[in-house]
Amino acid sequence: MRERDLVGRAGRFVVEGEVTLRLLLGPRSRFRAESLLLAPERLPGLAGALRDCPAPVYVAEKPVMSAVTGFPIHRGVLAIGLRGEEPSPAAIVPAAPAPALVLALAGLTNHDNVGACFRNAAAFGADAVLLDATTCDPLYRKAIRVSAGAALVTPFARLEAETDWLTLAESLSLEAVALSPGAGEDLGEQPLPSRALLIMGTEGPGLEAGLLARARALRIPMAGDFDSLNVATAAGIVLHALAQAQGRLSPGANGAR
Amino acid sequence: MRERDLVGRAGRFVVEGEVTLRLLLGPRSRFRAESLLLAPERLPGLAGALRDCPAPVYVAEKPVMSAVTGFPIHRGVLAIGLRGEEPSPAAIVPAAPAPALVLALAGLTNHDNVGACFRNAAAFGADAVLLDATTCDPLYRKAIRVSAGAALVTPFARLEAETDWLTLAESLSLEAVALSPGAGEDLGEQPLPSRALLIMGTEGPGLEAGLLARARALRIPMAGDFDSLNVATAAGIVLHALAQAQGRLSPGANGAR
Repeated sequence: MRERDLVGRAGRFVVEGEVTLRLLLGPRSRFRAESLLLAPERLPGLAGALRDCPAPVYVAEKPVMSAVTGFPIHRGVLAIGLRGEEPSPAAIVPAAPAPALVLALAGLTNHDNVGACFRNAAAFGADAVLLDATTCDPLYRKAIRVSAGAALVTPFARLEAETDWLTLAESLSLEAVALSPGAGEDLGEQPLPSRALLIMGTEGPGLEAGLLARARALRIPMAGDFDSLNVATAAGIVLHALAQAQGRLSPGANGAR
Repeated sequence: MRERDLVGRAGRFVVEGEVTLRLLLGPRSRFRAESLLLAPERLPGLAGALRDCPAPVYVAEKPVMSAVTGFPIHRGVLAIGLRGEEPSPAAIVPAAPAPALVLALAGLTNHDNVGACFRNAAAFGADAVLLDATTCDPLYRKAIRVSAGAALVTPFARLEAETDWLTLAESLSLEAVALSPGAGEDLGEQPLPSRALLIMGTEGPGLEAGLLARARALRIPMAGDFDSLNVATAAGIVLHALAQAQGRLSPGANGAR
């Protein structure tokens, strides 16, 4: 069975590695495990995490695991998760007037970038991620791995093909902030909104002109003529600024900021 | 010939794609091209860039290019660059008291991460990147590609195996700032130095305790319990803050900040 079919029609996904398995089984996960496949040497270390796990645990040596799955299993930890029903955007965005930090991905077709965006969203405490119809699935194996498991804990919802970002933002009482290298406003120039929908497009074509004209368009100032950031890095920098503006960041050991 | 040997002992490297080829041939490049291999359909678009190029240009259909190189050539643009002599750290770090922004990579063995760090260094106008003995080579094909060509234009130097970061920082009149999730000082809490050596370690083990104890250790405040950022993203966030503190960022269309 191809992953495309498993993740798509069959409503399941593959989790690899101990860190992501612990997230899948832990209290913050939005998903249930259907079954686990572990190498025997991984059982003792995972005993605690498996204590309350209702899913069956199958045990096999790594070469058997690799033969069964069709790809090399280095870590000896695999699970099948159940997607369950996908929530609506309104169900995962905090209701006004509470602060809200929502990341919107428009046309991101690279699993590394989508995974990295989820990782940054989780690191800076975003409430939710919204995906347009063309952005790839965060529950692909590679996206989950690159997200460091954030795809399992940060709520996400996919928009209908005809949904307009700005109409959606308005209906959720969010201010749409669209990132673009050509925007007139620099990050840091103006206060950031307490209820933000941060819209990120692809690196090549970027966001469409119609959207940029109607949203608050923002750019990250750079230096000299090498005006180029990866989309997930750019999202990380703006999410950090938004989380700071919204008071979401936990102070460090010194405590005072 | 394996890339490891080409890049290592043979003092050459492979450049793929039009954007990076233009950087290699352009005025900002630190390197010379030895030879080019292009698909015939790419010649007209590159005519301007090739006008003053002294290197021989070989032309072959893409399937021939792939057969010659041993990997699939999608873009029809390949070049061999010459490494030349590697500069010393002192030669690429601006002399005091001018501002300096230098990124130090310690133990980064993943080409994606090294490439992404170079991309961020270039985007925020870092003067140089310094590499310890274990960090992988920025002139590997994948690192150059992920760097969006920044590895060809941002000066870098590799440290001798026995060099100590803090001794080096002192000798170059740089303040060493070491990023660590466990650091006591939060980014944004204190003013940042005008001559900075930003030291990044690997995501797993991080920087060694001895170094963290002696350097100014800094953390990026995050939200809740998902305390995890990719090393290049973390570097991007701190480089952005350092570049801002040092007045390196070009204002956008609005001009005023």
